Amino acid sequence: MNETFLQACRGEHTAYTPVWFMRQAGRYLPEYQQVRSKVSFLELCKTPELAAKVTLQPVDIFGFDAAILFSDILIPMEAMRLDLEFHEGKGPIFSRPVRSQRAVDDLVVPVPEESLPFVLETIHLLRGCLRVPLIGFAGAPFTLATYLIEGGSSKVFLHTKKMMYQEPELYHNLLTKITACTSAYLQAQARAGAQALQLFDSWGGILAPCDYEAFALPYVRSIIAELRAMTDVPIIYFINNGATLTALTTTAGADVLGFDWRLPIVEAVACSGRHAVQGNIDPLALFLPKERLEERIRTMLLDARDARGYIFNLGHGILPETPPGQVRIAVDAVHRFSGKP
Amino acid sequence: MNETFLQACRGEHTAYTPVWFMRQAGRYLPEYQQVRSKVSFLELCKTPELAAKVTLQPVDIFGFDAAILFSDILIPMEAMRLDLEFHEGKGPIFSRPVRSQRAVDDLVVPVPEESLPFVLETIHLLRGCLRVPLIGFAGAPFTLATYLIEGGSSKVFLHTKKMMYQEPELYHNLLTKITACTSAYLQAQARAGAQALQLFDSWGGILAPCDYEAFALPYVRSIIAELRAMTDVPIIYFINNGATLTALTTTAGADVLGFDWRLPIVEAVACSGRHAVQGNIDPLALFLPKERLEERIRTMLLDARDARGYIFNLGHGILPETPPGQVRIAVDAVHRFSGKP
Repeated sequence: MNETFLQACRGEHTAYTPVWFMRQAGRYLPEYQQVRSKVSFLELCKTPELAAKVTLQPVDIFGFDAAILFSDILIPMEAMRLDLEFHEGKGPIFSRPVRSQRAVDDLVVPVPEESLPFVLETIHLLRGCLRVPLIGFAGAPFTLATYLIEGGSSKVFLHTKKMMYQEPELYHNLLTKITACTSAYLQAQARAGAQALQLFDSWGGILAPCDYEAFALPYVRSIIAELRAMTDVPIIYFINNGATLTALTTTAGADVLGFDWRLPIVEAVACSGRHAVQGNIDPLALFLPKERLEERIRTMLLDARDARGYIFNLGHGILPETPPGQVRIAVDAVHRFSGKP
Repeated sequence: MNETFLQACRGEHTAYTPVWFMRQAGRYLPEYQQVRSKVSFLELCKTPELAAKVTLQPVDIFGFDAAILFSDILIPMEAMRLDLEFHEGKGPIFSRPVRSQRAVDDLVVPVPEESLPFVLETIHLLRGCLRVPLIGFAGAPFTLATYLIEGGSSKVFLHTKKMMYQEPELYHNLLTKITACTSAYLQAQARAGAQALQLFDSWGGILAPCDYEAFALPYVRSIIAELRAMTDVPIIYFINNGATLTALTTTAGADVLGFDWRLPIVEAVACSGRHAVQGNIDPLALFLPKERLEERIRTMLLDARDARGYIFNLGHGILPETPPGQVRIAVDAVHRFSGKP
């Protein structure tokens, strides 16, 4: 087992800089497309052999230093008894948005072993063949709540913020239930063998810091505190577009803070104190010509050199349009420049 | 003429805190809807009597301390000989995206007096009846370029960043032409009587600071420098989601920096040096119950007290769903708490 990634998470010395990419298992890979052409996205998530197969692809092809479970943050929301659909090009749809106490009452907090066995089975399969650490994950409660309240993706999050501002008790009840589900789900992943856990807060960055502190952060803290009580796997908290929330995210209790590309990594490192740092090249920078991409990676490695631990990653998920050859250039550059033997 | 807004722009002492809202003339107002029900959005922009009428509405109804010309940042792009359409609920569409040197060559830098006379006529009409200052505006070149390159709105700005990274010369040629158009357009607005000018950089915040510095900021600087040479009207530079770009935006040459809601105003003030500051309550905070909205406004006024000059505003445009009564509460609160006689 190559433990470089886990060492970096724990702030230990590493022989070189480990690298993985958010959404590294996905549509930019022809090998993924081939599997996906035969099943729907949800079927792929729920079929352990196939989910394990696409999880392994980028690790085998590019030599990433960690694998991340192929799944979607909304899978456990479906297990709360919500109708989840994915429409091509439109993203996820919940046909009945959760906007009333009655709708909250109808949500079931699932027992992962009963309602999400395919995820745990995927983890078992992967641990049997991986030689790099396996990352499990979940959406952060606020991010999950936005999908439930809006009924899908959103631009301005009108319904979410209206509920926060006008019906804070209802909002709290919903978030409490999502938090219970997420907490149990991550604990089950750790028990099943996930060696690190990442909380994805894709939408936390739409909140002013005062609102993030009141309406999002407490639920993240609670999940992490419960995980701490049962496991010592490293916990990564990634927040998208959260530069102004950094001081708050350092109080969440995570081991690693993940950053999007808007905050220069040198500043991210300076703000992160005892945390390891993960990030944060613009996913679109993978479209740079080879020499300029390598130059940008070299600069990032230099700028991150004072981090307690450093994991190279994109600042957000890789885009489907990315040429795989560019991914190889990037992974090789991180390894070469950081002295991988 | 109530000059409070202009005094704040210049960093002079004001008797109270002036307030205006981005998109204050717009769909949330029944009075606007009534005018708009009879003409298309583009017709409304191009009919001086109607554009002037809807510009005045929010000033008359709520007592805002400045008026902003009713128009759209893409109007001068149409004058560059691009087909611009607005589709209900879909935003602007350019049916032929600009992605080649040939397409750039086909763009015409318009003479505003010839191609955009309706804008200048609207300004004349408004100056004849307004008793608060009139703000003219334009989109910042990078923001305008994203619409031209993508062919409309975008989520990830793939084509824009690809052009930046892979065809920097083409990108530069396009931006140079947009900049020439924007510069002439703002100068014409100043000559026609606009008493302040705001550059809207709605999408600058999608760039990492190193890319913003290379691909967006120079064009803003150039426009402001050319304006300085011909007029002393205050210049406001608003960048959306630009918290990590603040150090760079202070070098743009503007008098006032406008901030979105993600950066606490106390930090915005601390970073802004000699600039006046404009912003930055979350537009959705207008949905707060009266007492909590007033509390938030009171806090913001306190947090901004050390600004060289301070203009209360939203952190982004007001949403169409906003109840007008909430706007009244907010404007009155700003005035009352800041001691308007």
